[in-house]
Amino acid sequence: MQTSTATTASIMAFQALVNEIHDIQGTQALLGWDLETYMPEKGGAFRAKQMATLAKISHNLMTSPEMEDHLRHLRQPGVLEKLDTMSQALVREVGRVFDKSKKTPIELLQEMVETTTEAHKIWVEARSNKNFKQFEPVLRKIISLNQRMAEAQGYEESPYDALLDEYEPGLTVKQLDPVFAKLKADIVPLLQAIQQSGHTPETGFINEGFFPVEKQLQFSQMVLREMGFDFEAGRLDLAPHPFSSGSSTMDVRLTTRVDERDVFSALSSSMHEGGHGMYEQGVNPALNRTPLAEGTSLGIHESQSRLWENQVGRSRAFWSHYLPKLQATFPELGSVSLEKFYSGINRVRPSFIRVESDEVTYNLHIMVRYEIEKALIEGTMKVNEVPEAWAAKMQDYLGITPAHDAEGALQDIHWSHGSFGYFPTYTLGNLYSAQFFHTAKQQNPALESQISQGNLLALKTWLNQEIHAVGKMESAATIVQRVTGEPLNASYFVDYLWQKYGEIFNIQR
Amino acid sequence: MQTSTATTASIMAFQALVNEIHDIQGTQALLGWDLETYMPEKGGAFRAKQMATLAKISHNLMTSPEMEDHLRHLRQPGVLEKLDTMSQALVREVGRVFDKSKKTPIELLQEMVETTTEAHKIWVEARSNKNFKQFEPVLRKIISLNQRMAEAQGYEESPYDALLDEYEPGLTVKQLDPVFAKLKADIVPLLQAIQQSGHTPETGFINEGFFPVEKQLQFSQMVLREMGFDFEAGRLDLAPHPFSSGSSTMDVRLTTRVDERDVFSALSSSMHEGGHGMYEQGVNPALNRTPLAEGTSLGIHESQSRLWENQVGRSRAFWSHYLPKLQATFPELGSVSLEKFYSGINRVRPSFIRVESDEVTYNLHIMVRYEIEKALIEGTMKVNEVPEAWAAKMQDYLGITPAHDAEGALQDIHWSHGSFGYFPTYTLGNLYSAQFFHTAKQQNPALESQISQGNLLALKTWLNQEIHAVGKMESAATIVQRVTGEPLNASYFVDYLWQKYGEIFNIQR
Repeated sequence: MQTSTATTASIMAFQALVNEIHDIQGTQALLGWDLETYMPEKGGAFRAKQMATLAKISHNLMTSPEMEDHLRHLRQPGVLEKLDTMSQALVREVGRVFDKSKKTPIELLQEMVETTTEAHKIWVEARSNKNFKQFEPVLRKIISLNQRMAEAQGYEESPYDALLDEYEPGLTVKQLDPVFAKLKADIVPLLQAIQQSGHTPETGFINEGFFPVEKQLQFSQMVLREMGFDFEAGRLDLAPHPFSSGSSTMDVRLTTRVDERDVFSALSSSMHEGGHGMYEQGVNPALNRTPLAEGTSLGIHESQSRLWENQVGRSRAFWSHYLPKLQATFPELGSVSLEKFYSGINRVRPSFIRVESDEVTYNLHIMVRYEIEKALIEGTMKVNEVPEAWAAKMQDYLGITPAHDAEGALQDIHWSHGSFGYFPTYTLGNLYSAQFFHTAKQQNPALESQISQGNLLALKTWLNQEIHAVGKMESAATIVQRVTGEPLNASYFVDYLWQKYGEIFNIQR
Repeated sequence: MQTSTATTASIMAFQALVNEIHDIQGTQALLGWDLETYMPEKGGAFRAKQMATLAKISHNLMTSPEMEDHLRHLRQPGVLEKLDTMSQALVREVGRVFDKSKKTPIELLQEMVETTTEAHKIWVEARSNKNFKQFEPVLRKIISLNQRMAEAQGYEESPYDALLDEYEPGLTVKQLDPVFAKLKADIVPLLQAIQQSGHTPETGFINEGFFPVEKQLQFSQMVLREMGFDFEAGRLDLAPHPFSSGSSTMDVRLTTRVDERDVFSALSSSMHEGGHGMYEQGVNPALNRTPLAEGTSLGIHESQSRLWENQVGRSRAFWSHYLPKLQATFPELGSVSLEKFYSGINRVRPSFIRVESDEVTYNLHIMVRYEIEKALIEGTMKVNEVPEAWAAKMQDYLGITPAHDAEGALQDIHWSHGSFGYFPTYTLGNLYSAQFFHTAKQQNPALESQISQGNLLALKTWLNQEIHAVGKMESAATIVQRVTGEPLNASYFVDYLWQKYGEIFNIQR
């Protein structure tokens, strides 16, 4: 099969246009990174203008008549299938984003930007006043805008599906509902059993000391290096909220936050961000300057961060090697035993704040949000009912009731940003991570013993080959099926929790 | 006078377009700053792509049909003069850049980019081999491209004028020739008198110690803060080559380089860059997001850096306050006297390398380059004659002959970048700085005594008001005339040198 001259010209021009858009988006990533790391205090106002201008330019290029012409030509039957595999994937992915952009009325986008800019300020204020009522009117507007967005995009069953698709292409309520039902059925009893076990691991040696910033950063860098994060193609810096941000496989920036009283939290967040970063560094370099060089979905991205943060970074195997190193770096930690340390970092306790929660309770926090979001978007819950619903669900799943809205429905930034449908990807990440790690151990029975010897590169290489290299050439579902031999299966995560915490808390399923 | 509705619409759309272009250029500045400071090693290739894409987008917007339409409308007699002063200045400045861009064939620009990308590598290689012959062919091409550029832009007398105009709008050979003639006539005898004075200040205590990076950076930051550099609207970081870079009055980045053996060089370069940075911070904030928020010319920009670096930073008054602080910070400096320190930092010695030269010899280095550049562009010197001409002029003005090309014609990066006409702006900066500082002292006779008490803000405020605030609303010539009451006059600089160095070396004019 040969492509015609017109097709050759079109695919080349299309790729050049895609490259330019990606260059702009990489630049936007740098503007965002700098904003959170090194930008002087007063730089915010003009930074916002720069970011808005670049967003407009990349949107205009994405929806330009040139783009439309190329896609119309390249997506024709008889043309598409003659392209090489990478070009086909690129046409498919860019076409998907193009279609979504075209379906979104520009006025709706602008209204969303204006509303959420305002909403963010109101949310900060309301949270500081612990008063959900203050946030209600603007949240009502954000929900209505999201509903209009869902209508504009279209959906088969629930309008919430159209929002999920933004973060996890193809994901639906129909798929998610049984997953959360299983988590609820299996995790709520686990949590109750843990609470009834009478065992409360000590944690004071972890988070009541003094561990200087510089030494913590150096330790995190050492671990990241041994995980295989390439510091010639990336960095680790301090930022108020940890994140990772990449513009190519050659430039990936991680950030972390250091609490000098706590020897574990910065390392843990560094390993989390390192998992994201190694995904971005591990994509086939030939995909650079295209959206195919990004992670395939937020859920798969989160699986990489969770895998390093929890499956590895909260494992006995990992700490059997790294605890002596941590003790050598921080003599204040003293001669705490591996078992004591391992129990301490795996303490389980129902708490109000999602980002401070543990592996067992984390997904229950997500379930609270998922159920409320879905009901709000589907119109079966009113905004003023949220605090009560929140309290009831927290009591139901976690056995605790928030004293005020700041430790309830006002704790997360997502809604003020206009993001509905984002939260479930956190849980997907947890589930995928367990499923991937299970497969990795099956394929390489020596994996845990390698980790316990400080050899982290075997795992990294496996992740590179199996998950990272394809970038966005494959969908999340395809990757999970190819790598693990089956679709998403929450059992691996549930089994992992019961096995690990059963042992720590001496309980039976 | 009232502006018409069409004009109001046009000026608003024009300003919005100018704002966008400036946002992109501010982003380009950040990409460049990051490249030199925090970018991971392997990030270079894709950074180059990002920079090229943004350059293309801003060029396209600058030369767009919309821009052309606005300028055609707004520059009409009967329209222009009805605009407010700022809008008039904006139309004038953007129109000037538009006209230049329109006159430059895009193929010529592209050929220049391609040639200089290659030339830079060849120059690095040739310099390391100390072999000008290797650089000759590509330099010949660069000169020919510059000649074509000059023809495209047009000029009245010398093609070199068209190149000067790029860096110092309006500057001509006719103006520069007598300036350099005066410098030659007055400085060469000064240098000879200094050499014959028999006095050679000691410098070992300055540059043969050990002064740790962190303490040097802190000292530089302290001095910059006392100069009035606003660290809430700027930063100081390390970079291989010191530079300053701003995207608004609210975000100005300085860099410096620290030599741990030398207690003076990093501070001196920080004060230099601080002068540039305070110019950018000091512009009327209403001019932000437009080219009017930039320095009016490279010469005036350099006057601000030179003023702080030399007129202040190499003065007895400044060090009478700061030497005790320097000694407290670096006990290794010992109890060196003010006079000994002052003489040490003002040592004069003919040397081969421009960037290492002193206040007396610096402009002689520039003169060598000016005369050779002009002859090359005017076609009266051939490329292969450069090394010989260089040696002869160095002998003539400085009394020394380079042993090889790396300490001769290959030392500067400028030609490999394609820049001809840039060097003279360094000398203009020196001349303007002396003329401005003379005026400042005349208007405020207490200035030197304020400086000797560590009060640097009086000078900073004067510079803000007299020079910085107008940004690019006034030309270099207008600013000099308004501030000093006369046009550029090299006598102030020559008198400054003779007075200062006459005293240090005990010689008469």
